[in-house]
Amino acid sequence: MNWGQRAQHRLSDIARCSVDTIGVTRLPFTPQHEAALNIIRLWMSKAGLQVHMDASGTIIGRKEGPEGSPTFLIGSHQDSVRNGGRYDGIMGVVLGCLALEKLKADTIELPFSVEILAFADEEGVRFPTALMGPRALAGTFDLAALDMTDSNGVSLRDALSVFGGDPDGITSLARNGSNTLGYLETHIEQGPVLEAEDAALGIVTGICGIERNTITFTGDTGHAGTVPMRGRRDALVAASEFISSIHNKAVDVADLRATVGALSLFPGVVNAIPSRVELILEIRALQDVVRNNFARVAQSVGDGISVSRKVGFSMKQTYEQTAVPCDVNLTDILETATRAICPSAPRLPSGATHDASAMADLCPISMLFVRCKNGVSHRPEEFATCDDMGVAIHAIAGFLRAVEV
Amino acid sequence: MNWGQRAQHRLSDIARCSVDTIGVTRLPFTPQHEAALNIIRLWMSKAGLQVHMDASGTIIGRKEGPEGSPTFLIGSHQDSVRNGGRYDGIMGVVLGCLALEKLKADTIELPFSVEILAFADEEGVRFPTALMGPRALAGTFDLAALDMTDSNGVSLRDALSVFGGDPDGITSLARNGSNTLGYLETHIEQGPVLEAEDAALGIVTGICGIERNTITFTGDTGHAGTVPMRGRRDALVAASEFISSIHNKAVDVADLRATVGALSLFPGVVNAIPSRVELILEIRALQDVVRNNFARVAQSVGDGISVSRKVGFSMKQTYEQTAVPCDVNLTDILETATRAICPSAPRLPSGATHDASAMADLCPISMLFVRCKNGVSHRPEEFATCDDMGVAIHAIAGFLRAVEV
Repeated sequence: MNWGQRAQHRLSDIARCSVDTIGVTRLPFTPQHEAALNIIRLWMSKAGLQVHMDASGTIIGRKEGPEGSPTFLIGSHQDSVRNGGRYDGIMGVVLGCLALEKLKADTIELPFSVEILAFADEEGVRFPTALMGPRALAGTFDLAALDMTDSNGVSLRDALSVFGGDPDGITSLARNGSNTLGYLETHIEQGPVLEAEDAALGIVTGICGIERNTITFTGDTGHAGTVPMRGRRDALVAASEFISSIHNKAVDVADLRATVGALSLFPGVVNAIPSRVELILEIRALQDVVRNNFARVAQSVGDGISVSRKVGFSMKQTYEQTAVPCDVNLTDILETATRAICPSAPRLPSGATHDASAMADLCPISMLFVRCKNGVSHRPEEFATCDDMGVAIHAIAGFLRAVEV
Repeated sequence: MNWGQRAQHRLSDIARCSVDTIGVTRLPFTPQHEAALNIIRLWMSKAGLQVHMDASGTIIGRKEGPEGSPTFLIGSHQDSVRNGGRYDGIMGVVLGCLALEKLKADTIELPFSVEILAFADEEGVRFPTALMGPRALAGTFDLAALDMTDSNGVSLRDALSVFGGDPDGITSLARNGSNTLGYLETHIEQGPVLEAEDAALGIVTGICGIERNTITFTGDTGHAGTVPMRGRRDALVAASEFISSIHNKAVDVADLRATVGALSLFPGVVNAIPSRVELILEIRALQDVVRNNFARVAQSVGDGISVSRKVGFSMKQTYEQTAVPCDVNLTDILETATRAICPSAPRLPSGATHDASAMADLCPISMLFVRCKNGVSHRPEEFATCDDMGVAIHAIAGFLRAVEV
């Protein structure tokens, strides 16, 4: 078996740690998580790492470097969404372990300590919070989240304690950034760009910021037969004009996404003019200034439609997460190492959020994307090839050899 | 009390025949219907009419004309929607009775027999059918509808029997069209046209035909962050383009209404590109050819968007009801009689359906609209003024005097 085949084999193996046979369903602090940790421990041992679980439930494999040397971190999450795939998250742990195993096989000693981190919870499916592991390391974890409960009323605190974690010890996990060289996360792309560009790997420039806006158009309802077309104040016609206009404008802005994924209308019956439409406009961009500017464009488009269609328009930001750029130096090193084996690898932004966004509060971050079939993720059909994963293992190993203390 | 005040007083009186104190809820073949009939019987008696209930539950007041003379029919329905208003339907009965009472007071004898018809069920709220009364008279009632049941499992047949009707006698109610001079229905406009034109009354040119089309746009879903804007096949963006385009085209067509009142999208979550949108396009027009042409325009707009946005588009007609023009001769007579007292009364189509549409299978029909406040109907706020109703009573009386045998 070559390196890529080993990765595929390991992912099939750990995929069985799931409560459901349709895809993978592995939530944090469950028997499936426990079973997965036993497998991950073996992978880490094979790579020559010392393994322990920290207070937040992160399993950590460490290879000690020269005395007094800083530590480079490689990480991703072990958990999945419900009926998700075999790659999202866990692939980053597998490829990290295999890259270190390859360096060991090649008898390469790195001039720094290395750790592989398998975080408990990135998807936030069981508890209405996530990223406890990386936030604990960065010293940004909000202890109030320990009181959040799952759908059975079990608190995060209790679930973690029963699992062998230590809620009271989380605060002391905070690392010293000056002794941390950087962080690398490898993840499937979850999008169609690498497939379209015929590249196995992509070098991530940063994690897009996200904002969500609740937008309301209000007009007048009325009988669909008795109210003439002229003079109607149809909230859906106004909202439709807004949606297509926003889409057309967003296409022209680099590294920006604008999506209306949810919409409801009232009264919502076939023979009544819609009086109110509520929709959510999600905007993501690699640059916060680009995102903020686009929100202003949306406000202005809505205001214009409000005047021309004589309808009410309101736009309220309900969620915001700022962008997290990848470290320029690490990204350059990653690009060189990646293109050495995959010359066509493009740079691209990450539209989705990752553990790396929380790790950025601790140290410089970098991310490597692996092509996934049809851009599909979070579904049982999620797939990456042996070849692509093999290339990624070589790129990670090459990257680690190029990182300087 | 003048004629308009009497009408208002009677409508307030019969509004108490309701199961709910918020607006009027009077469904057919209920204790509220029974109570209403007792009041209507008194109105009819005051107008000098002989009263009986027919096999279909229509209460009929008749004034015999010269021997062998034909009969002119005046009608509307007694029932309401749930939490509806005090005018829709029943006002046509009240004004008809008062017009005949006025003719009696003026000692006018008409050269034909006259009947006032208070139909049991036009709204179709209790049973999934309606218009039994007028259809019985026209000989078009489908007896299979008697087996339809209400939400408590009571069949229309049983409800009618218990109420004193005669399901087996419905077939024999069919009238002879050659002995029927015509039909007049007076109704609130249920729209904003008369208010906008500052006219108490409007002369109806016909009842619009209606069709409903289920329209589906299909694209590809995907993560709202990871799929770049270019290359997206967003079903909601396509549907939005369709909705605003159809609206803009409909505005330019006379006596046409095109409305999207219902829309659903899938998966319908904030961070996923919509893969499918289903909507219902309702088209109404006074001319069936205009409606059919517009449906072809909608198909062509959808086909165009399907090509330009690379999405699937399908359009399927799920309901069709052809237009019913009012009789040219009766409408001319009605216009003359109406403009004698209300010179600004415009001609306008009826976008909503009425008992008259079923009566058209029996005899020439005509309809008079009365202005209603803010164009509101089917709500407790539904309102028409004493003055406007008084003008309508005069117009109806003048119309009856002008109808020739």
